[in-house]
Amino acid sequence: MVNIEQLLNEHSVIITESLKEYLKTPEKEVDEIFDSMRYSALSNGKRIRPFLVNEFSKLFKGNSESAIAYGCAIELIHVSSLIHDDMPCMDNDDYRRGKLSNHKVYGDAIALLSGDAMNMKAYEIASGNKSASLESRIKAVSVISRLSGGEGMLGGQQIDHDCEDKKVDFETLLNMHSKKTAALIKASALLGCCSAEINDEEDERAINAVKYASSIGLAFQIKDDILDVEGDEKLLGKAVHADAKMEKTTFLSFMSLDEAKEYAEKETKKAVDCIKQYEGSETLIELAYWLLNRNK
Amino acid sequence: MVNIEQLLNEHSVIITESLKEYLKTPEKEVDEIFDSMRYSALSNGKRIRPFLVNEFSKLFKGNSESAIAYGCAIELIHVSSLIHDDMPCMDNDDYRRGKLSNHKVYGDAIALLSGDAMNMKAYEIASGNKSASLESRIKAVSVISRLSGGEGMLGGQQIDHDCEDKKVDFETLLNMHSKKTAALIKASALLGCCSAEINDEEDERAINAVKYASSIGLAFQIKDDILDVEGDEKLLGKAVHADAKMEKTTFLSFMSLDEAKEYAEKETKKAVDCIKQYEGSETLIELAYWLLNRNK
Repeated sequence: MVNIEQLLNEHSVIITESLKEYLKTPEKEVDEIFDSMRYSALSNGKRIRPFLVNEFSKLFKGNSESAIAYGCAIELIHVSSLIHDDMPCMDNDDYRRGKLSNHKVYGDAIALLSGDAMNMKAYEIASGNKSASLESRIKAVSVISRLSGGEGMLGGQQIDHDCEDKKVDFETLLNMHSKKTAALIKASALLGCCSAEINDEEDERAINAVKYASSIGLAFQIKDDILDVEGDEKLLGKAVHADAKMEKTTFLSFMSLDEAKEYAEKETKKAVDCIKQYEGSETLIELAYWLLNRNK
Repeated sequence: MVNIEQLLNEHSVIITESLKEYLKTPEKEVDEIFDSMRYSALSNGKRIRPFLVNEFSKLFKGNSESAIAYGCAIELIHVSSLIHDDMPCMDNDDYRRGKLSNHKVYGDAIALLSGDAMNMKAYEIASGNKSASLESRIKAVSVISRLSGGEGMLGGQQIDHDCEDKKVDFETLLNMHSKKTAALIKASALLGCCSAEINDEEDERAINAVKYASSIGLAFQIKDDILDVEGDEKLLGKAVHADAKMEKTTFLSFMSLDEAKEYAEKETKKAVDCIKQYEGSETLIELAYWLLNRNK
């Protein structure tokens, strides 16, 4: 039996150690921006994206050093988006992962700059991944930029921002989540392929990796909406019924709780079906179910 | 006699046309973020950075298509930094290049997101530069990320932010400008080398390109400080004596006007000396003097 939480924790330690190296202050004059980057990047997170990179790399017999580099890159893109997302002009959140958000500690200007610098660092790491071929590195940069840009994650955040005060239809909700959350999940799966030197997105393994990622990304979001209704505030570490209070359109605006659970389960099974034929996919299968059954 | 202004204008048109293609809205749901990107990226600018990419590419017999792609990439990094820099939490500027700044038109949230998306697009363009070899593209991504990140431009912005309310020493002033402004100028020169497939920064031509860029970058900044004292408000399109009013440390905090002019001239000559041995360097030589003698 695979213990996902333990595996996540073990891999998270490796990623944190690598990020610590990547984010060392190069000269004291710029210590503040690097300190701000370290503050957010080295704090505890599940680090699901680097974990996915590593698992898909392993599944397709990739190089683990390479997977760690790409994992750090995608994690930095993710953390940068959280720093910017917490800023007053966006969600205006004072806390993140149980501690003060970046801008509350360093001020808005440094938070803005260090989020930007984190994105740059991600590309520096991906392009400088010495354990990967040139093809793999170019593919990795292309995957990250496309899936995190205006057509990907950032486009999803724009849609989300536009939808704040209005009802949206189901198609828009799906599109928004597929960009805002699932795009980086897909990028992680593809980066795992890149570190196994599968640099062609038309390769059947890459196609299946993306399908798996899309489905767990969607299931993850449905589950989030479910937890907001019936989750335990103590376990979640945040207030429930926040969506309803803010009159936010969620999956539960279109279906009952039972239907939503069925939907999330269906997507999880779809994800599993894409990868179960590969030897060594047990961890990815367990991960999908673990995400479905989480209570926080 | 080379007419720099005409050459800049001609090349700017080419860059704007290419950017228009790169920034087309891919689907209507994300039109707002792309519209915001186009608003800033397609507005008139001298586009000195893409011009430098192109001139160094030409000097070293590079591919012009490749130079255009890299030129667009570095211009987007530059414009993104302007969008973020104008935001209320940074310089809080309502106008840029004679029109309302991005956040005044689209709001702070979209300005933040579109600045981020512009950075991503830059890497998408550089990594997808089909006229360049894989080596060249990886080198280009590495150059952009390193010189615009926490050790480069963004680090310079952090130093600038820290120095706002205090006197700084000469060394810090030099370090700040070498990062904040000169880093992207250096990146442009190196990208020109990359589009001529000079992908080794130890190559003598790349070394000279970087030296040229550092010197014109420094001369440019000294000239800026001089213009703030003796420039014509109408020509400059902005108020003079702004530095003195804000008690900002400038080159004139450490030397007289005449000494500053001499300093800028000396740096310009140093720049010219680095490249005059190459056949076809007339335009780059004229550019250095044009930047020195500008009155706006």
